[in-house]
Amino acid sequence: MKALMILGCPESPVQVPLAIYTSHKLRKKGFSVTLTANPAAIRLVQVADPEGVYTGELTDLDSCLNELSEGDYEFLVGFVPNDAATAYLATFAGILNTETLAVVFERDADTLEKLVDAVMEGTEAEVIAARAHHNPAPLRVRIDRFLEEL
Amino acid sequence: MKALMILGCPESPVQVPLAIYTSHKLRKKGFSVTLTANPAAIRLVQVADPEGVYTGELTDLDSCLNELSEGDYEFLVGFVPNDAATAYLATFAGILNTETLAVVFERDADTLEKLVDAVMEGTEAEVIAARAHHNPAPLRVRIDRFLEEL
Repeated sequence: MKALMILGCPESPVQVPLAIYTSHKLRKKGFSVTLTANPAAIRLVQVADPEGVYTGELTDLDSCLNELSEGDYEFLVGFVPNDAATAYLATFAGILNTETLAVVFERDADTLEKLVDAVMEGTEAEVIAARAHHNPAPLRVRIDRFLEEL
Repeated sequence: MKALMILGCPESPVQVPLAIYTSHKLRKKGFSVTLTANPAAIRLVQVADPEGVYTGELTDLDSCLNELSEGDYEFLVGFVPNDAATAYLATFAGILNTETLAVVFERDADTLEKLVDAVMEGTEAEVIAARAHHNPAPLRVRIDRFLEEL
């Protein structure tokens, strides 16, 4: 089984730790995990997992999208910190047409709600959402619960 | 040989990835590494290194400081994203009175310069500094160079 994880812009300190955590959990469940993001986010993942213990293939967002076809992955996870990430996730989800999880986070409650609405309008993803910027705990708990039932 | 790493407030996305990277490098050089930070930063490190492959002991900043004595560690590394971190590093460095590295980072060049000045006034640390927020590469290169000569 193959999973694709999309990261957004690396503005929030919680994103890369949570992405590594989720990748590790998916690999322990037997998924082969590919992580795609912009170059800055990819570099952060490489620095945080220098031996590649928790992550698998890392690939640039645009080249990943160019080569993507339905059936390439059985599971899609999108980290959604902003509107651009919502748009990317909708595009990837539209092509893959498979089970999708959106992990939506923002420090401001109103902006978070708007992001969740946009994800729900643009995709059929399961949505995990929490106000988060420094503290990964609320999202980690929700990710754990989701993955237990995957 | 024992090394202590102090992290600042987890506002910047580069801090936790670079701290994990530095911890891993120090452990490969034979150091036993303790990392101390506020609870949010500790949680981010735990989430990003779920099996504790790259990090060793993680401990709360204030309890670490309360128990600290000269001679406890042979090497001190401080990540300095703001004034509070500068003050903590000066306090820890004053007690330990040992070889110290300050990794100073800020997205704004003027603020970075002021932080570097404050670290140089308050400690005798070697200083590595770079404008950084998303991109860990400039600091990673400087950390590599420093550790090669350690």
